[in-house]
Amino acid sequence: MNGAESMVRTLLGSGVDVCFANPGTSEMHFVAALDQVPGMRAVLGLFEGVVTGMADGYGRMAGKPAATLLHLGPGLGNGLANLHNARRANTPVVNVVGDHATYHGRYDAPLASDIAGVARNVSGWVHTATSARSVAADAARAVQAAMQAPHQVATLILPADVAWGEAERPAPPLPVAEPTPVTDDTIAAVATALTNGRRTAVLLGGAALGPEGLDAGGRIAAATGAMVLCDTFTARLARGAGRYPVARIPYFAEQIVDLLKDVEQLVLVGTKPPVAFFAYPGKPSVGLPDGAEVLVLSHPHDEPVAALQAVVERVGANAADPGRATHTVDGSTDGRLDQFSIGRLIAAHLPEGAIVSDEAATSGLGAQLSLATAAPHDHLSLTGGSIGQGLPVANGAAVACPDRKVVCLHGDGGAMYTLQALWTQAREQLDVTTVIFANRSYAILNIELARVGAVGGATANSMLDLGNPNLDWVHLANGMGVEAVRVETLPAFADAYSSAMRTKGPRLIEVVL
Amino acid sequence: MNGAESMVRTLLGSGVDVCFANPGTSEMHFVAALDQVPGMRAVLGLFEGVVTGMADGYGRMAGKPAATLLHLGPGLGNGLANLHNARRANTPVVNVVGDHATYHGRYDAPLASDIAGVARNVSGWVHTATSARSVAADAARAVQAAMQAPHQVATLILPADVAWGEAERPAPPLPVAEPTPVTDDTIAAVATALTNGRRTAVLLGGAALGPEGLDAGGRIAAATGAMVLCDTFTARLARGAGRYPVARIPYFAEQIVDLLKDVEQLVLVGTKPPVAFFAYPGKPSVGLPDGAEVLVLSHPHDEPVAALQAVVERVGANAADPGRATHTVDGSTDGRLDQFSIGRLIAAHLPEGAIVSDEAATSGLGAQLSLATAAPHDHLSLTGGSIGQGLPVANGAAVACPDRKVVCLHGDGGAMYTLQALWTQAREQLDVTTVIFANRSYAILNIELARVGAVGGATANSMLDLGNPNLDWVHLANGMGVEAVRVETLPAFADAYSSAMRTKGPRLIEVVL
Repeated sequence: MNGAESMVRTLLGSGVDVCFANPGTSEMHFVAALDQVPGMRAVLGLFEGVVTGMADGYGRMAGKPAATLLHLGPGLGNGLANLHNARRANTPVVNVVGDHATYHGRYDAPLASDIAGVARNVSGWVHTATSARSVAADAARAVQAAMQAPHQVATLILPADVAWGEAERPAPPLPVAEPTPVTDDTIAAVATALTNGRRTAVLLGGAALGPEGLDAGGRIAAATGAMVLCDTFTARLARGAGRYPVARIPYFAEQIVDLLKDVEQLVLVGTKPPVAFFAYPGKPSVGLPDGAEVLVLSHPHDEPVAALQAVVERVGANAADPGRATHTVDGSTDGRLDQFSIGRLIAAHLPEGAIVSDEAATSGLGAQLSLATAAPHDHLSLTGGSIGQGLPVANGAAVACPDRKVVCLHGDGGAMYTLQALWTQAREQLDVTTVIFANRSYAILNIELARVGAVGGATANSMLDLGNPNLDWVHLANGMGVEAVRVETLPAFADAYSSAMRTKGPRLIEVVL
Repeated sequence: MNGAESMVRTLLGSGVDVCFANPGTSEMHFVAALDQVPGMRAVLGLFEGVVTGMADGYGRMAGKPAATLLHLGPGLGNGLANLHNARRANTPVVNVVGDHATYHGRYDAPLASDIAGVARNVSGWVHTATSARSVAADAARAVQAAMQAPHQVATLILPADVAWGEAERPAPPLPVAEPTPVTDDTIAAVATALTNGRRTAVLLGGAALGPEGLDAGGRIAAATGAMVLCDTFTARLARGAGRYPVARIPYFAEQIVDLLKDVEQLVLVGTKPPVAFFAYPGKPSVGLPDGAEVLVLSHPHDEPVAALQAVVERVGANAADPGRATHTVDGSTDGRLDQFSIGRLIAAHLPEGAIVSDEAATSGLGAQLSLATAAPHDHLSLTGGSIGQGLPVANGAAVACPDRKVVCLHGDGGAMYTLQALWTQAREQLDVTTVIFANRSYAILNIELARVGAVGGATANSMLDLGNPNLDWVHLANGMGVEAVRVETLPAFADAYSSAMRTKGPRLIEVVL
């Protein structure tokens, strides 16, 4: 067997059985190995940003990595933005980047560049394989690195001659270390703080945002009066009926300051103190009042759920009502079409167990509010701020969870970044319904332009405006084989969306706002 | 005035009057400055790969840089592949990347990353501005760096508070050093070599590929019997009637070896010895026979045209016939539709002074052959091997040369990478006619899969196949406001293409192969 085959067999043996790919010449032996080794599902993306975004969505839902397959430095570059988002989401990804043959590098051929240097920007682990005989061991280590708590992007650079050279055998899987348990002393200290009478906020992140962690958070809030919050943008958050409807840290700096202004103690669970997304002239970067004390219940690599449950026990909150959301929806189609009425309908027809990939940006508040009391679902948001994540993350989630409906809520500006994801939806017949909120502008920037104190005239406004010409999402989706419809009224949206919820396969609904 | 305004005024004063942009919050003051300072044309791209590709096309045709405006590390990442191509083309670009305010960086907000580290990969010059009072001087230096022979990408990172802080005045332009003249000794040595009876090849690159450099090359070939060649992929090559039809170094390693097998001396003019684009098992990386001597007439930073003309003089080739191409076209629409018949028609109807942006890949040979005797035109090719360059480069060329017709020849696989460029064509009403060669596959990879000795089965083949579903380029173009037609016969192509050549504005023709 050659190096590529030893690597594919090793990945499979280590539990990695999906490869999102956009290969080139230097990756041809890896591609051929996908045929020689049964069991690896290969999913093509027509642009590398789609490939890496799909790996992010898959990793968030599967809890284990997919492999990517990218073509040298430029392929990595094209995939970099969604690897940045994956890094911020702590998603496990085995990011395979092909490179020139080791002996070819010295000639500085046109596609040559410093792959490792760029990869370091988004990877917790980077390694360039040097030999066909050791690349299987490299692959096993890459999976182990990707699974290292709290998970990360592990980049393995694969020179072409390492892929085609003679190898001996696959490598056995390496053990994955469990997240570190939180010590009793730490639990006791947090429990004491929660009952010392000071105004306390508890900020949940990462693995604490599943149903059990949220239940513990809800009980702590009920029993101690602490404000229990989660990060503004979370990789995966359990929401809807039966889950504690944790409040989010708001987006804008002054809103964070206002929310936290009386807080004397902040307890961190797998995350860090809130920081403003952007700086603005004369506004603060951080949200916590001066002098507030910060306690850490769990670091990102620690196990947070058992720790929260132990805190519940310590503060005597076992019997407290966590205040879970009830299933309350409103499917009426009266009133005007806006993000709030659309959001109501999205929530009303959402099937149980759905996955919502949310990059609706300024149009997303309506759905976020209504989804709090929809059927139970998982909510995936834009973790790294780099737009163009929603569509590919939806695809990856659909590959990971073929029996769950995926709903992708997307602003039109961000969706244009990785619209090629629609083609993969059609090819793989992924069960994704995409709602495009077509406000025909980078609406957030109109807000931000004013907020930073800048005054825009015709030129500036044209840089924020996606009209002239308007994008036609029905044409765009049809051009990639996805059935699509444009709606301008609530009843039309209800028809299109509820029909999509009842059937399988990709659909796109353009909502003209 | 603030830092952003001082910077925009400095760029204008230094001759930079076009800004290709995809801004975000941290760039809002720069965007606002575009209004406050008249004279800077701002062109929006809906994806950063479009923005940087447009800057590449503009720089190749204008001979001076445009500015870009990108949003932090992920925006740079999205633009990286086409900056890689611009680096390989030696295109002057002032690449402006916004960043968080200097004091905000320490909080590791979601969009924070190592911008300079990534930028170094594609830039000859990288600087992070530190103060509003000095950013004007930074901008003047960035233009000077971009114009440094043989031109390069200069990246200026602009923290938000540097943009919004108080500045004093714009900075004056800095002098641009002329390319170094080649010494008489070097010219004499090359002339001697050309007449010493040994088999000699002359390889032209960079600025030698304009009409005058080619004329000199043609005269040298005629007078000395030397084989005069150009690089496989060139940033800008004068072609068509009245120009010396220089032969290209072929793409595949063994073809290069075969072409050069008898060469005893290679004279380099602004380029480097030919290297195989990729390595293949058992095939050579370099094309020159062992023991062949390499002489350098001019390095990339030297002035090549006067040097070539001086060599012409020395070898007594002034009166030699450079063998310029004559205008010979064939507009007949008989026969079957394939890349060769299509290429004939593309050449037949090409208007004088057109610009051809060529990323037709495996479908491009037909047009390349026929265009050799078309009306005189400039030919821009994919310099760095990173696909998705053709459409944005066409846009940038159209912005630089509004009175010249731009024809973009593109494979369907590559065009999907940066299809958002079509929207900018529609908004700016750029005079670009795009011909999509829809073979519905990554055709080069089918060739490469066999060449590397790999055997593909169903999974491998599906990774190279763009069918299932077929892309519909008429829908895609219409979705972005560009008029489009699909053709399946030669007369239909002739009608659509000749009509596009006679009218202004963006058009797309999908040719089903």
